[in-house]
Amino acid sequence: MEPVIVVHGGAWAIPDSLTEASIAGVKAAAQKGLSVLKSGLSALDAVEVAVRSLEDDPAFDAGYGAVLNMDGEVELDAIIMDGKTLAAGAVSSVRNITHPVTLARAVMEKTDHIMLTDRGASRFADTVGITPVPINTLVTENERREWEHYKKYAVGVKELFNSQWGHDTVGAVALDCYGNLACATSTGGIQNKMVGRVGDTPIIGSGGYADNQNGAVSCTGHGESIMKVTLARLILFHMEQGNVSREATDASLAYMGERVQGGGGAIVITPSGDWAARFTTKRMPWAVARGESLFYGLNPGDMFEEQLPK
Amino acid sequence: MEPVIVVHGGAWAIPDSLTEASIAGVKAAAQKGLSVLKSGLSALDAVEVAVRSLEDDPAFDAGYGAVLNMDGEVELDAIIMDGKTLAAGAVSSVRNITHPVTLARAVMEKTDHIMLTDRGASRFADTVGITPVPINTLVTENERREWEHYKKYAVGVKELFNSQWGHDTVGAVALDCYGNLACATSTGGIQNKMVGRVGDTPIIGSGGYADNQNGAVSCTGHGESIMKVTLARLILFHMEQGNVSREATDASLAYMGERVQGGGGAIVITPSGDWAARFTTKRMPWAVARGESLFYGLNPGDMFEEQLPK
Repeated sequence: MEPVIVVHGGAWAIPDSLTEASIAGVKAAAQKGLSVLKSGLSALDAVEVAVRSLEDDPAFDAGYGAVLNMDGEVELDAIIMDGKTLAAGAVSSVRNITHPVTLARAVMEKTDHIMLTDRGASRFADTVGITPVPINTLVTENERREWEHYKKYAVGVKELFNSQWGHDTVGAVALDCYGNLACATSTGGIQNKMVGRVGDTPIIGSGGYADNQNGAVSCTGHGESIMKVTLARLILFHMEQGNVSREATDASLAYMGERVQGGGGAIVITPSGDWAARFTTKRMPWAVARGESLFYGLNPGDMFEEQLPK
Repeated sequence: MEPVIVVHGGAWAIPDSLTEASIAGVKAAAQKGLSVLKSGLSALDAVEVAVRSLEDDPAFDAGYGAVLNMDGEVELDAIIMDGKTLAAGAVSSVRNITHPVTLARAVMEKTDHIMLTDRGASRFADTVGITPVPINTLVTENERREWEHYKKYAVGVKELFNSQWGHDTVGAVALDCYGNLACATSTGGIQNKMVGRVGDTPIIGSGGYADNQNGAVSCTGHGESIMKVTLARLILFHMEQGNVSREATDASLAYMGERVQGGGGAIVITPSGDWAARFTTKRMPWAVARGESLFYGLNPGDMFEEQLPK
């Protein structure tokens, strides 16, 4: 089986000032993920490495440089899922963890549970050698300024999203050479969110889902809308009905728009290596790495191709 | 439309000493829910009232008398969902709230979010007049003794569940006279769980889902297994494919058993008022109230009927 990885950097109205960094970030993450796959490691390893790369990049709303909640703190959510066993790990509302996706993987591999939240998640991190950092370590000067701005104007999250502002979520899906699928999604959520707000990202079937028999999905967009339609699972149900990944994703995003007036995007990979990267927002940076090629895009209809460095 | 309400009190190996209290509890909750529906209130109101009744009853693992986590504290999760709009509210890991289902409803109706967790959920409760209680208020002497016992033997949650011990979750689904569906689920989770563990109950599509176009479901059983297959949404997808509620539920529970070796149960109601109460565990107390009749059961195959008091 030829390995493939697809990554996204969030579906929203990305301003022109951020487009270059966003494209560079998803391209780099996809390349790192493919290197992992080419070395014979698993789809789980690849999506974790790709998402860690995006968490480290302040251009994206995950890990370092994530948006701030009403209190001016980062509060991070993440999920990872293994399509072979349907095992999953997730964390919500963690404030002091550099790589929430790695903590989510530890929940999956080292506990009997799937999700740990807030205080319990931080406590668990300590026991598995994932050292908490001071909260301010993850807060960038830029996000602090944004927070001051929105605090002043007291704009609600609904308005923030309706203007497609407030950046949003990263994710990856991969197929490895053994035929296994995996997904991972990580986020800082919506700017100015209430303390303790958990969005779609760490919710199994909403922010992501992976099943070797069917496909792997990572979602992005207005979290509450994605949850209302359990978007990741909905896309996979459409695929079970015989729709190809692109049609299944478009139909599910259209349904989300009609039924709950929400915008978003998703990346999908199938057991045979077909993939899709679709969105109903203004922009979504995405990249796909496979063999010697890197495909990527940002605006609707984009499909650029580059040869990977040897 | 003739209103109907279905309630459950958790799918597990209920000991003989608890059967009488369990049956009395679900019957009382169904009657209270039907009174609400007959007075012309909504399906949302009915499921909230029914679940509050079960949360108050120490025979069940929700609210007062819920099981204790590793620290010897209650940690409660709940969800409520409106089938008309797909609006939902959920809370996870709350320790000091008597009726988590009511707090979940406040999240749905008074915030832009669907889920609040731990510290943020408690803080929100304060702002909407849901007064936190001292944590010990919710801890019964009986649960304290159980906790001491399991602490001594250091049994893991996997063993606890494999023996079908550690009680589990309450829920309700209803159809009101306006044709609207709703679901609610509430739990203290698995005995001896890690601090911060979030199970299926507050996860949209896993612990519950409601959609006027299709049906409403509340699930119970091994939370991590239910999450892996997004059980509530899976049952509804089977119904979308034309299966009646009972077949859809049995097929989904069978899949969960085969794919991830998990047991559980679910109650379902359809837009036309057909209902199902099915389980693969040893027992599940359930009751249905409709018109002048109350149906209920506990063991596989049970179907008792009583006339409701005039």
